[in-house]
Amino acid sequence: MDFNFLQQLVTPAQTKIVMLILDGLGGLPLELGGKTELETARTPNLDSLAAQSILGLSVPVGPGITVESGPGHLGIFGYDPIQYRIGRGVLEATGLDLDLGPNDIAARGNYCSVHASGVVTDRRAGRIPTEVSRKLSKLLTTQIEDVQFLVETVKEHRLAIVMRGPGLGSAVTSSDPQKNGLPPLPISALNPDSKKTARLVNRFVERARKILAAYTPKQAANMILVRGIDHYPDLPAFPQVFGLRAAAIAVNPTYRGIAKLVGMQTLPVDGGMVTDEFTTLEKNWNEFDFFYLHIKNTDLAGEDGDFARKVSVIEEVDGLIPRLMALEPDVIIVSGDHSTPAALKGHSWHPVPTLVYGKYVRADGIAEFGESACRRGSLGVLPAKNIMPIALANAQRLAKFGG
Amino acid sequence: MDFNFLQQLVTPAQTKIVMLILDGLGGLPLELGGKTELETARTPNLDSLAAQSILGLSVPVGPGITVESGPGHLGIFGYDPIQYRIGRGVLEATGLDLDLGPNDIAARGNYCSVHASGVVTDRRAGRIPTEVSRKLSKLLTTQIEDVQFLVETVKEHRLAIVMRGPGLGSAVTSSDPQKNGLPPLPISALNPDSKKTARLVNRFVERARKILAAYTPKQAANMILVRGIDHYPDLPAFPQVFGLRAAAIAVNPTYRGIAKLVGMQTLPVDGGMVTDEFTTLEKNWNEFDFFYLHIKNTDLAGEDGDFARKVSVIEEVDGLIPRLMALEPDVIIVSGDHSTPAALKGHSWHPVPTLVYGKYVRADGIAEFGESACRRGSLGVLPAKNIMPIALANAQRLAKFGG
Repeated sequence: MDFNFLQQLVTPAQTKIVMLILDGLGGLPLELGGKTELETARTPNLDSLAAQSILGLSVPVGPGITVESGPGHLGIFGYDPIQYRIGRGVLEATGLDLDLGPNDIAARGNYCSVHASGVVTDRRAGRIPTEVSRKLSKLLTTQIEDVQFLVETVKEHRLAIVMRGPGLGSAVTSSDPQKNGLPPLPISALNPDSKKTARLVNRFVERARKILAAYTPKQAANMILVRGIDHYPDLPAFPQVFGLRAAAIAVNPTYRGIAKLVGMQTLPVDGGMVTDEFTTLEKNWNEFDFFYLHIKNTDLAGEDGDFARKVSVIEEVDGLIPRLMALEPDVIIVSGDHSTPAALKGHSWHPVPTLVYGKYVRADGIAEFGESACRRGSLGVLPAKNIMPIALANAQRLAKFGG
Repeated sequence: MDFNFLQQLVTPAQTKIVMLILDGLGGLPLELGGKTELETARTPNLDSLAAQSILGLSVPVGPGITVESGPGHLGIFGYDPIQYRIGRGVLEATGLDLDLGPNDIAARGNYCSVHASGVVTDRRAGRIPTEVSRKLSKLLTTQIEDVQFLVETVKEHRLAIVMRGPGLGSAVTSSDPQKNGLPPLPISALNPDSKKTARLVNRFVERARKILAAYTPKQAANMILVRGIDHYPDLPAFPQVFGLRAAAIAVNPTYRGIAKLVGMQTLPVDGGMVTDEFTTLEKNWNEFDFFYLHIKNTDLAGEDGDFARKVSVIEEVDGLIPRLMALEPDVIIVSGDHSTPAALKGHSWHPVPTLVYGKYVRADGIAEFGESACRRGSLGVLPAKNIMPIALANAQRLAKFGG
């Protein structure tokens, strides 16, 4: 639905909405006819919530499309992820609180290992320790011509690189060959406005190569790869579009970054555990209308192919649901930004189990939260971006159309 | 989903996809509460395949829209049939291997019977024998001014007419009154660029009337009707869009034509029976990534209003499924291009039962292939054009979006 259309209907209310996102929630059974991770988990609280909810399967971007976190989250936040894009570098930089201006460029970097022959032998430099990575990043921060290069470690081999200076276009290629055994690629401009960017990034990479060779002669991290170069995106602000004072509760910087990009206020989480996220929710309950609460460990377990650990993370979250219910939210959304089946050890295209709870949902009466149960629900198979308007309606925050 | 968007994600793989299309598969019960043709058929093999699949009902073009073969097939091939069009004449001509150039025009023709008063008494000229039709078509092939008219019989009363020459627009009306009891209509131009086409087609029709009157004074076929005049369409090529070496196995020329128009390679079928189509599949298994296999007889039985015959064609196809499974395809789609309920004796708007089988589909666990069973499946009610991206994902041929 068009934001202009929706905004005309948005109306103030005292109601509160909680969007609980279990990253990579959707899964697959390990054998035909078996249960998924969510179906295997003992989730009495989510099941009881499901009984008072409408259920469905949400499609992050489109049929068959597997998404990264950026478009996955834009979808559940109500944005069309094909229309609105966030460069990977911007995502990383924003997550690190590197304030980006509209003329800045951000890139995602990787420390990597390159053989004397020039080919990449490890795109992740053996996942070098974050402390080492931080030291290297300080060495790489520099100025070339009239452009500053700010380099910050995200975690381990992962970097955010911000370029600040005049005349920087963002239409350039990536240096990442995407596979080991190939040499890093030179960055090239895809339009005339981006020639300066390409030239300076190539110089920056060459300088990094020399510094890393001198500093870490025996270390794995002797080169960097640069990709996902982009400007700060021009996204409509979530609080304005949906008329909600919106807060984000997330531990992982990437998700704090996405939330900030759409204009949510990110709240501190003391301790960094799932239970601490719920404490943050409780502490800030009176200050906001909308809370996005992000759980990362479901996705990590899925990526590791660890079915049992993903089950246990889901059970841990289930155990915290009573604390959420005690706050008496008007509307609760439980979903994921995409599926990450342990069976595939990665993100996948499978639609994501989703529930919308509220007093006026016309509950499906299915007392189970799982992929098969959600398939029978009245939300059907729906684009993720449709969830927000449904939540707003149930929070009585949308006026009648056509009056 | 936009083809440009999809193409950026298409990635090579060794997997194989088979799309088995039972033409006009969807049906209706003969009485309220009864079973459809597919539900009546004994289909142990399709049922067992369904148990390992996701099910749904596919909508060829849009809600309530009944389609001809052209748009029906464009939909299942992943094209938006409203955006991409194939003129009926082009379809017939391509099916007959009449090579069309980008400046050629093709029309669909019918031999018909006209009364002395000038009104059409039979739009199909009593379905004259194909041999007679072929003789007449040779007589009609001619040149008028600087434009060649190539006339070829498709089958019985059905003709393809190709016009080749300079300055031919395709925005012209049809001469077919669509009903008996009305006179053939003069062709008129809908824009200035098409005036020459209209004038020459009218001369061609007048010449045909004279020749047919002389040649077949007592025969039914004493006139022709001309419709579906169009240029060769500018369709993105299926093998490029989806990154698949694609082959078509179809006996009927129309479907070979559609496949050729989207750039598939059409394979010869020795014998022309359904079992022969499976033999062609087996013989060419190693050469392609994608096979479109078309079964015509379900549609013909539906058109004839022959419920029992449609049931038996479905059972015949079911009996051949083990040969398909023996090839171990990674992904199988079973669907139709539209519904042709025997109860309606023609194409209809009803969504078409569809299954997508694969190792990673997250099977619905519904061991039955039929309209009611498909309604409960996790594909939901989906636009036909969404099937291809889902098949690609399951064949692990789509990269992650947003990296």
